[in-house]
Amino acid sequence: MISVLSELQDLYAPVRFDLTLAQRIFDDELTSVFPFVNDLCETVRSYRGKMLRPALLLLSARATGKSCAAHHTLAAVVEMVHMATLVHDDVLDEADQRRKQPTIASTDGNVAAVLVGDYLISHAFHLCSSLDDQHASRRIAATTNIVCEGELLQNRRRGDATLTEAEYFEIIQRKTGVLAAVACELGARFAGADDSTAAAMHAYGLWAGVAFQIMDDVLDIVGDANTVGKTLGRDLAQGKMTLPMIHCLRGATSATAKALRAAIGRPGPRASDRIGGWLAETASIEYSVTIAREHVAEALRQIDPLPSGDSKQSLVALVEFIIDRHF
Amino acid sequence: MISVLSELQDLYAPVRFDLTLAQRIFDDELTSVFPFVNDLCETVRSYRGKMLRPALLLLSARATGKSCAAHHTLAAVVEMVHMATLVHDDVLDEADQRRKQPTIASTDGNVAAVLVGDYLISHAFHLCSSLDDQHASRRIAATTNIVCEGELLQNRRRGDATLTEAEYFEIIQRKTGVLAAVACELGARFAGADDSTAAAMHAYGLWAGVAFQIMDDVLDIVGDANTVGKTLGRDLAQGKMTLPMIHCLRGATSATAKALRAAIGRPGPRASDRIGGWLAETASIEYSVTIAREHVAEALRQIDPLPSGDSKQSLVALVEFIIDRHF
Repeated sequence: MISVLSELQDLYAPVRFDLTLAQRIFDDELTSVFPFVNDLCETVRSYRGKMLRPALLLLSARATGKSCAAHHTLAAVVEMVHMATLVHDDVLDEADQRRKQPTIASTDGNVAAVLVGDYLISHAFHLCSSLDDQHASRRIAATTNIVCEGELLQNRRRGDATLTEAEYFEIIQRKTGVLAAVACELGARFAGADDSTAAAMHAYGLWAGVAFQIMDDVLDIVGDANTVGKTLGRDLAQGKMTLPMIHCLRGATSATAKALRAAIGRPGPRASDRIGGWLAETASIEYSVTIAREHVAEALRQIDPLPSGDSKQSLVALVEFIIDRHF
Repeated sequence: MISVLSELQDLYAPVRFDLTLAQRIFDDELTSVFPFVNDLCETVRSYRGKMLRPALLLLSARATGKSCAAHHTLAAVVEMVHMATLVHDDVLDEADQRRKQPTIASTDGNVAAVLVGDYLISHAFHLCSSLDDQHASRRIAATTNIVCEGELLQNRRRGDATLTEAEYFEIIQRKTGVLAAVACELGARFAGADDSTAAAMHAYGLWAGVAFQIMDDVLDIVGDANTVGKTLGRDLAQGKMTLPMIHCLRGATSATAKALRAAIGRPGPRASDRIGGWLAETASIEYSVTIAREHVAEALRQIDPLPSGDSKQSLVALVEFIIDRHF
């Protein structure tokens, strides 16, 4: 049984069996001769929450053509790449918890976390290279190149209050959008879809991924720790400028803007409470949700031409769920 | 002009032009649209010292068959993988300098170093996936899987005075041996060598890589900072048990063994001076060099059947150089 949020179980119904196969491939690939490495991977498995990228890939396959064995491999690959970024993010963010579990960085140290992330990325490419041709390896590697640039850019601009909305989108497209995009694209491509359908699925994944990241950034401010399993206001504390903050700085009174700027990277006590007040002044949460909704609408437009069916229906419901999970 | 130690220039003569092409591919692959990423890669380029792995790959190609365009790509790939491990090692080791240059970890922080290492490994796989078939991608990824396990194992056993010689060899075969081995193997394979020749070249690279690591560990204790460009006694300070220390602990008087054990991971002032005295008591440096020499002899035995020529001659001289660079 896949352990995902119960709301998602229904949406994943068309690919439930595919996901189980992907999960088995994921587990087999990571098995090491060293028991302590398997223990570390067990922690990684506990991070596996929404299985969003594998689900997108498998649903894209079934919505555009016929699903095949390569899809299960690729679903495991995209999840492994995603897990690698999470493990390295925990080093970067000095996070103690992820999905209510202690992080590898907090239990085994940053060194182990860096190495486990490396182990995951290496195995992702190893698994991908088991396919018959190089196409997926090329697309996955081109994607991780972009993800790394996104992370580098985000790190570079950390604590910088002058980050523009365009720069924010540049960062989140790279760090989140492209992996969702390539998941959908490869799902379609390996199902025998033509170029224009594969391109549409790529675009669907990109819009959806960006919408997801915007909402993730919103939930970092307003969500409750119980639901998303992490401390609130971490982005502000880490100096990561997100859409609500960028919008607020643009429209706030000079006093509020000054207070917000001062809190970036050094929030001080009660900052996570105060930020709610600052953003209310400019309706920046509402603005961000509106932008996320627009992205969802664009994603839906991309898959509109697909033939009706339960997989298409799930792709529609999945992007709507991005917004609805808290609003 | 390749900037390598002048002693190596002569040995690299048969593949000088190949190395220049590999270097160009390396540089092109890493070029980013973001100038700051190119600046970070410039620092990585300054780490490029011996170009040992590309040279092994290219010499193996010419010594066993005909060299081709794929070899230049693969030479860049193995160097990129090696650079990724160096950049992440600097995070793990909290090193301030590498080859007399400040490390990325020291100038841009650990976060940037983790991400630059990720960027390098991603581009290495991207470059490798540009080849016609999956063979090299599979071999490289299988190799990096093993390298990661070696690093994880080393990290796990850090500070543990009970590490045995067999465990030490398990670690260094994985973290250093297999990359040199796969470089030689792929050099031969893509030159059209048969299975047994490719296997012999793999074995040559493995013996040579392990010999190289033993000598690197010896030089960490006895080498001068001027020559290898790093602080002495770092392994002891970092709790990394190496062959000389393992041998010394086995044969030393109980007083010396006690002092050495106490210095692991917390060397205190003058420990790097004192370790010389401890190891002299048991002739542990001499022992380690003897073991390294035996590995070199095994490496030479593997390539003995190859037809004579300047590339074979360089492969012979290269492994002899491993020992001779300081003894």
